Amino acid sequence: MSDNVYAVTEVVGSSSQSTDDAIRNAISTAGGKLRNLEWFEVVETRGHIENAKVAHFQVTLKIGFRYEAET
Amino acid sequence: MSDNVYAVTEVVGSSSQSTDDAIRNAISTAGGKLRNLEWFEVVETRGHIENAKVAHFQVTLKIGFRYEAET
Amino acid sequence: MSDNVYAVTEVVGSSSQSTDDAIRNAISTAGGKLRNLEWFEVVETRGHIENAKVAHFQVTLKIGFRYEAET
Amino acid sequence: MSDNVYAVTEVVGSSSQSTDDAIRNAISTAGGKLRNLEWFEVVETRGHIENAKVAHFQVTLKIGFRYEAET
Amino acid sequence: MSDNVYAVTEVVGSSSQSTDDAIRNAISTAGGKLRNLEWFEVVETRGHIENAKVAHFQVTLKIGFRYEAET
Amino acid sequence: MSDNVYAVTEVVGSSSQSTDDAIRNAISTAGGKLRNLEWFEVVETRGHIENAKVAHFQVTLKIGFRYEAET
Amino acid sequence: MSDNVYAVTEVVGSSSQSTDDAIRNAISTAGGKLRNLEWFEVVETRGHIENAKVAHFQVTLKIGFRYEAET
Amino acid sequence: MSDNVYAVTEVVGSSSQSTDDAIRNAISTAGGKLRNLEWFEVVETRGHIENAKVAHFQVTLKIGFRYEAET
Amino acid sequence: MSDNVYAVTEVVGSSSQSTDDAIRNAISTAGGKLRNLEWFEVVETRGHIENAKVAHFQVTLKIGFRYEAET
Amino acid sequence: MSDNVYAVTEVVGSSSQSTDDAIRNAISTAGGKLRNLEWFEVVETRGHIENAKVAHFQVTLKIGFRYEAET
Amino acid sequence: MSDNVYAVTEVVGSSSQSTDDAIRNAISTAGGKLRNLEWFEVVETRGHIENAKVAHFQVTLKIGFRYEAET
Amino acid sequence: MSDNVYAVTEVVGSSSQSTDDAIRNAISTAGGKLRNLEWFEVVETRGHIENAKVAHFQVTLKIGFRYEAET
Repeated sequence: MSDNVYAVTEVVGSSSQSTDDAIRNAISTAGGKLRNLEWFEVVETRGHIENAKVAHFQVTLKIGFRYEAET
Repeated sequence: MSDNVYAVTEVVGSSSQSTDDAIRNAISTAGGKLRNLEWFEVVETRGHIENAKVAHFQVTLKIGFRYEAET
Repeated sequence: MSDNVYAVTEVVGSSSQSTDDAIRNAISTAGGKLRNLEWFEVVETRGHIENAKVAHFQVTLKIGFRYEAET
Repeated sequence: MSDNVYAVTEVVGSSSQSTDDAIRNAISTAGGKLRNLEWFEVVETRGHIENAKVAHFQVTLKIGFRYEAET
Repeated sequence: MSDNVYAVTEVVGSSSQSTDDAIRNAISTAGGKLRNLEWFEVVETRGHIENAKVAHFQVTLKIGFRYEAET
Repeated sequence: MSDNVYAVTEVVGSSSQSTDDAIRNAISTAGGKLRNLEWFEVVETRGHIENAKVAHFQVTLKIGFRYEAET
Repeated sequence: MSDNVYAVTEVVGSSSQSTDDAIRNAISTAGGKLRNLEWFEVVETRGHIENAKVAHFQVTLKIGFRYEAET
Repeated sequence: MSDNVYAVTEVVGSSSQSTDDAIRNAISTAGGKLRNLEWFEVVETRGHIENAKVAHFQVTLKIGFRYEAET
Repeated sequence: MSDNVYAVTEVVGSSSQSTDDAIRNAISTAGGKLRNLEWFEVVETRGHIENAKVAHFQVTLKIGFRYEAET
Repeated sequence: MSDNVYAVTEVVGSSSQSTDDAIRNAISTAGGKLRNLEWFEVVETRGHIENAKVAHFQVTLKIGFRYEAET
Repeated sequence: MSDNVYAVTEVVGSSSQSTDDAIRNAISTAGGKLRNLEWFEVVETRGHIENAKVAHFQVTLKIGFRYEAET
Repeated sequence: MSDNVYAVTEVVGSSSQSTDDAIRNAISTAGGKLRNLEWFEVVETRGHIENAKVAHFQVTLKIGFRYEAET
């Protein structure tokens, strides 16, 4: 990792299928805008309920990426 | 959301299958007693182990519902 | 549970498939070394990203086991 | 306070006017259902945004009341 | 624990004698209203002081009970 | 909310008038740069003191917005 | 700020009017005893309820002041 | 509580007998220096071990007192 | 304490009598396996309930010991 | 500080030399992209180990800057 | 440690050189006013930035001292 | 990282010189007992004071290592 510098961005992904899919959606969308994504950390898991069923899982992630990728 | 008031109840769901199922079980059971469930938030994920395998996932949720539903 | 004493060990499991699999891998590996595992608690969920996809989910667990099993 | 027992309920109030009004709305609504409310504690302050303005403040409270009042 | 669902309620017990008594008072009172109490967790330990002495210990508990017991 | 992805940015608003005004200033300024702001959450409330009076309230917010708005 | 040293004291202000007034009361009273108050941070917001209305808001602050002012 | 202002001081009591005694010792000693002590809150419970036995329990408290008492 | 190194282990003690006894049981059992125990810190206090009474107090401790003792 | 608005960004600096150098590297790199950096706060201190030695210290910072600087 | 009672005070030290120096400055200044300082704990590490460089490190400490020393 | 499993151990290093040295001492000592140490995380920074000077810095670390190394 030498003396690299990384930035951390916070992203919320959602999915009607699973918490893991919500994570994957968040990372995939972030990857369309930021290069060199390296790691993530789950900050919060929430969701919306409709008719007493999970309508969407929402997972908030911190995503780390090499700082140079931000330009 | 105008000036509505919501209550938050804490529920623990369990499942031998997955953490997502434990969430769904908790919400489904709560929905049998409370109306107008609107959102949930995962507070804690635990479980029991038997023979070095997950016997049950247990997920503690906060579940929000419109206060009027409590009567 | 009478007056038993338990120890808690912290383990990180990883899986390219799902967070639940990461939990199962951690417990299965710990079970190869420690007897009488009884419960777990998720402490942190993280992961590595490659090419804007989840390469590995990593879940940190606390695992409780009856203290006698440590010898 | 002798040896009384208290219960704590979690309520979310909202207001388009102010955070203090959101607190007052939560307590007033809770007071329509529970007797002997004694104290509150702010757990979280959030809100919705529309057109780059605060549409509603939402304040989550823990409200304590004498346990006898629950029947 | 099969796929049971549990609810968690928050209760504050007090005692002029000891923190353990405050815990016992909270559980005993809750047991008069809710069936199938299964576990508790201490959330906070506080108290009132009079004449530089502890007048009452107050212990806030989360108490878990099988959800069916709520009806 | 379908499978949308949201970003979360952290902003500090200040006001000599009130904590609510500090929140409104933060959101109004953020709205000049980011589109589709949807929610906020108060992270911290601080302030500066001059002559034993509040000179400025400073409120740190997390503000969520639909990710598409970032481009 | 050169190499100054600051002390932090914890104070609880109350007000029947608003949370902001409770903050101002705490700072004003502290300013009667301590010199060179420089900043505050809100630690906790609570209050008492009477007749299902807020009787008093109570806000706990950490207040920082230049250490020399303590003598 | 009208518009009173309170200060909070942090004190560590110890006892070779019990955690409750450590609390009582802390309050009793603080009461020899500060007037109008009103409440306490346990922040941390620790202790020293000698020969695999508890040598001393140490309990850290926050103690609140009416601000006027400080002079 | 010179430049010693310490390890910290997490242990859960239980007792049907009191929280202090649960602490003592945890330390006594740990002392049968590890040498040079020096301090403890309470991490969590929980328990099991049977017939609306405390069946067992369970206290989770971190216990520090001189690292050399681990061999 | 008048009614200015600030943004907060999260950055991870690394250094093989020291934690302070990791902080300085993070700030220096951030300063190449953002103007008007004003303060930082350490969120987390971690590092990588190779051959039982610290290979790199990694310090996660929140860095505040005047919002105007973001354009 | 017999049945001694300790007080804990919160102090912020600053240094343009290093975080360790900020700690040392805080303790040295506190030692000019309070006797029998025994331990410290780092609560927060922050700092000011000027021209994209650390102008000052600021470290907030809790400092424990034997209570008798306060008179 | 494939599907490896890691263990996390908690260690306290001390040094009369600096916080960074305390980290290095902890890792070096742990490396004498455990193989394949991979990362660390600072949990707490404390220290002892003698004559109003830092006698020892004490840093508590979590240290992660590949689980196979434990045998």
